[in-house]
Amino acid sequence: MPIIQMNLLEGRTVEQKRNAVAAITEAVVRTLDVRPDQVRILINELGVEHFSVAGQTAAMRQAAAANAKDL
Amino acid sequence: MPIIQMNLLEGRTVEQKRNAVAAITEAVVRTLDVRPDQVRILINELGVEHFSVAGQTAAMRQAAAANAKDL
Amino acid sequence: MPIIQMNLLEGRTVEQKRNAVAAITEAVVRTLDVRPDQVRILINELGVEHFSVAGQTAAMRQAAAANAKDL
Amino acid sequence: MPIIQMNLLEGRTVEQKRNAVAAITEAVVRTLDVRPDQVRILINELGVEHFSVAGQTAAMRQAAAANAKDL
Amino acid sequence: MPIIQMNLLEGRTVEQKRNAVAAITEAVVRTLDVRPDQVRILINELGVEHFSVAGQTAAMRQAAAANAKDL
Amino acid sequence: MPIIQMNLLEGRTVEQKRNAVAAITEAVVRTLDVRPDQVRILINELGVEHFSVAGQTAAMRQAAAANAKDL
Repeated sequence: MPIIQMNLLEGRTVEQKRNAVAAITEAVVRTLDVRPDQVRILINELGVEHFSVAGQTAAMRQAAAANAKDL
Repeated sequence: MPIIQMNLLEGRTVEQKRNAVAAITEAVVRTLDVRPDQVRILINELGVEHFSVAGQTAAMRQAAAANAKDL
Repeated sequence: MPIIQMNLLEGRTVEQKRNAVAAITEAVVRTLDVRPDQVRILINELGVEHFSVAGQTAAMRQAAAANAKDL
Repeated sequence: MPIIQMNLLEGRTVEQKRNAVAAITEAVVRTLDVRPDQVRILINELGVEHFSVAGQTAAMRQAAAANAKDL
Repeated sequence: MPIIQMNLLEGRTVEQKRNAVAAITEAVVRTLDVRPDQVRILINELGVEHFSVAGQTAAMRQAAAANAKDL
Repeated sequence: MPIIQMNLLEGRTVEQKRNAVAAITEAVVRTLDVRPDQVRILINELGVEHFSVAGQTAAMRQAAAANAKDL
């Protein structure tokens, strides 16, 4: 422990994800008084049709935002 | 909040998944007294080899059902 | 399947939670073409110190909102 | 119930995963006094960039181990 | 890895839970070719109002079963 | 998004948990190019009988470590 599961929308680069797990691990080690090797992080990537807010998938919200720009 | 994670077997259409998140959001707003924009839904799709009941994967169960029909 | 995990802040009544799982099950049956007995819902309740947005726990945000009212 | 979610690094064969869910189901039935059909297992596979220990992804750790062998 | 999350209804004894994690670990080691110290299991216990099948919480289903017996 | 679920053994103070969510949020904002209000963190605390490594619960491992000290 700690075991951390991070849900992310698809689209980040490998480098971004590597930087994120390194930075999160450092933050956890500093604040929860654990060794780095005790910190495990699992990344779960979601497609734009697999995450919704207010009943609208990310794909629907992105399309609506793009349309609004065209008006 | 609420944050909802829905595990589904692969195979639904985009339209089915969009209808599902809209209907679930409406149900949650109605019964838990929250605003729509407070409701987040994450869909996790599983392949037929990644879900089992009674130690049998969905693929094994589907094959057995198909065989039973052929008899 | 589907198996649904709903994360909620503590504080709802038993009746609210019963209404929510009934309404969500109906929504899933209607939109994903499954039988009611195929729908499982797990409720995970979180205390106000166990959910944060923008690095502030729900407890901190509630206290800040209360203070703002007193001003 | 029980509903079990097993997070695995990618790379196992279908046969390994079928053996694993059968063996886990048997172990749960034996120790928790439930019927086999009450045991559901969801497998979540992670790519080597999506699991980290000590801030290093599995891909980084595998590369470091390979380099160490070449020295 | 593997990291396993087991959702259980409340009510098992400490001994049952200890036997379960030992038996599941052995099953995973045997079938997925990993060392015991690579297997982590997290138990998530749910109250009878926090698990539902077909829109009925476990508490509702237990009460209905008890009533059926009294008839 | 991102939505982060952090599994922790029981025992941290409120202050430690507040520091942790603040530090993790900052790390995620810095590395994944999101706004603070897009970062949600859910803390799941586990008792010592609900987390195991190598088939031994944290309670069993702590007892064994304490016994080893007494020898």
